Amino acid sequence: MSDSNFISKLQKRIFTMANPSLLGLDPKLEYLPPSLLKRLDGKSGEELAAACTEILYEYNSQLLEAMADLVPAVKFQMAYYEQYGLAGLAALKNSINLAKELGYFTIIDGKRNDIGATAEAYAKTFLETAITPNGQAIEAFQGDALTVNMYLGTDGIKPFTKNLRELGKGIFLLLRTSNPSGGEIQDLNLADGRKLYESLAERVAAFAEQYRKDSEDYSPIGVVVGATYPKEAAKLRRNCPHLFFLVPGYGAQGATAEDVARAFDKHGGGAIINSSRGLMNAWQKLGYDHEDFARAARTAAIKMKDEFSSFMR
Amino acid sequence: MSDSNFISKLQKRIFTMANPSLLGLDPKLEYLPPSLLKRLDGKSGEELAAACTEILYEYNSQLLEAMADLVPAVKFQMAYYEQYGLAGLAALKNSINLAKELGYFTIIDGKRNDIGATAEAYAKTFLETAITPNGQAIEAFQGDALTVNMYLGTDGIKPFTKNLRELGKGIFLLLRTSNPSGGEIQDLNLADGRKLYESLAERVAAFAEQYRKDSEDYSPIGVVVGATYPKEAAKLRRNCPHLFFLVPGYGAQGATAEDVARAFDKHGGGAIINSSRGLMNAWQKLGYDHEDFARAARTAAIKMKDEFSSFMR
Repeated sequence: MSDSNFISKLQKRIFTMANPSLLGLDPKLEYLPPSLLKRLDGKSGEELAAACTEILYEYNSQLLEAMADLVPAVKFQMAYYEQYGLAGLAALKNSINLAKELGYFTIIDGKRNDIGATAEAYAKTFLETAITPNGQAIEAFQGDALTVNMYLGTDGIKPFTKNLRELGKGIFLLLRTSNPSGGEIQDLNLADGRKLYESLAERVAAFAEQYRKDSEDYSPIGVVVGATYPKEAAKLRRNCPHLFFLVPGYGAQGATAEDVARAFDKHGGGAIINSSRGLMNAWQKLGYDHEDFARAARTAAIKMKDEFSSFMR
Repeated sequence: MSDSNFISKLQKRIFTMANPSLLGLDPKLEYLPPSLLKRLDGKSGEELAAACTEILYEYNSQLLEAMADLVPAVKFQMAYYEQYGLAGLAALKNSINLAKELGYFTIIDGKRNDIGATAEAYAKTFLETAITPNGQAIEAFQGDALTVNMYLGTDGIKPFTKNLRELGKGIFLLLRTSNPSGGEIQDLNLADGRKLYESLAERVAAFAEQYRKDSEDYSPIGVVVGATYPKEAAKLRRNCPHLFFLVPGYGAQGATAEDVARAFDKHGGGAIINSSRGLMNAWQKLGYDHEDFARAARTAAIKMKDEFSSFMR
């Protein structure tokens, strides 16, 4: 039976590429250049759906191919694919496969959450594979890791974690999100004097330790910690030395490189920093033609890498 | 611009049919009878996917058709469809359309959660419709209501609620879930002396009031309250007179009709009670042939209706 730690593998690739950046692929049709969008013209029904799959995939593939030598991992935000129904999800499936072929680690940002058999079904969707009673495998949207919301407690988490090492995969639990109202619940003061997210951090850290070997720096169970709250991130980094952070909020959501740096350990490890719109829509900010969106994204990704590689030693 | 309250419409249908039951359609292939499963034999790839779509849909359609005159609403648990990838999601789409044709209210149990533009994309997936920049509508998995996890706070909720009355649709926020470990987070003691879920209930009730008219008993924003915690359900019922409850946990998860009754108001309104495995797998308990699963489910649904209609007056 195989045994590996997804985060160890990801961290190794991050250091090899000297780049802790995560390419977020959140393709709204509105972001696509006119040359792709015009392929939808005059279409409806099945034909429209097929064209939609085609242009979303082509948009993603241009971005993936432009940065495969530069960026270690890609994050697919489920909502942007689901909104286009089967057409969007077919594009997602093709994009995940291409990302794997190009050598990216693939993180599915689904924030899924449920219990028992239902959580097992989500695990099959995104990490394992569903098998028919006849023994046939049915591929869904399998990546290397999935984001999970833990409001339902540990029996909403265990179905995702029980085979993690055997599969060599990971999860990221939502701990401190990057949005303005994230604190409404996450910062509630508990009777024991701590904030809710601090209490959860301690429990997640203890739970995640069961999946880490002594020789490994980080557990395959990581957490989502928004860069828009740098003080909280710094405190969590100190208190949870073996939890790897997936950090949203850089760029478009307002966090700076210095904010983000709080999530790193002393070697510049321990975190991967997401940028979605900052890369996808870089052509606007950098003054490129819309058709050159992938080249612009690469330019922005190099700048992002340079900002963060300075923290790595 | 139209304006209606989804919960008022649902509640009216519940009283008309004298049945506050919700049919949960969570089709694992393992639940399907041999006559359907054998259609997968010897197939692979696209052919397997097409057969999988076909038998999941046929299974659902037999259940939907058997109870259309009896049960007011159906709940689709997303995980069971997603685990079979595009094949499962095509079956879901067809099943939602059939359920609507048959007159059911349709609730999508996706427990989705995200912020800003991403939450808007989920709203388009399940409640509204995505429109291309050319103005073409792309159907996804639109139902009448969606379950939502509120760990991200109000800016994770508002994208789902802003058009609710105009659309005549609803959401159910996860408040007190039915699983054993639900209390790990939801029952945490806050500094103000309350439990987390109690504090959330108060805030959700205040938020939901903005969407209710004086003439209406319930807000179109409801909550999920597990039947497996009857004391908590009773307290929430008293404290939140205008929040409608979606109640999981009856039957397979161990809650009795008396437990569930705590969720009703004095007229037997205010709640809809889900049963998934209890109906889908009724053939086993009632000693029917597996092929007669839909007839067995109807028998179980009549028994369930009789249990709950006694609370209605």
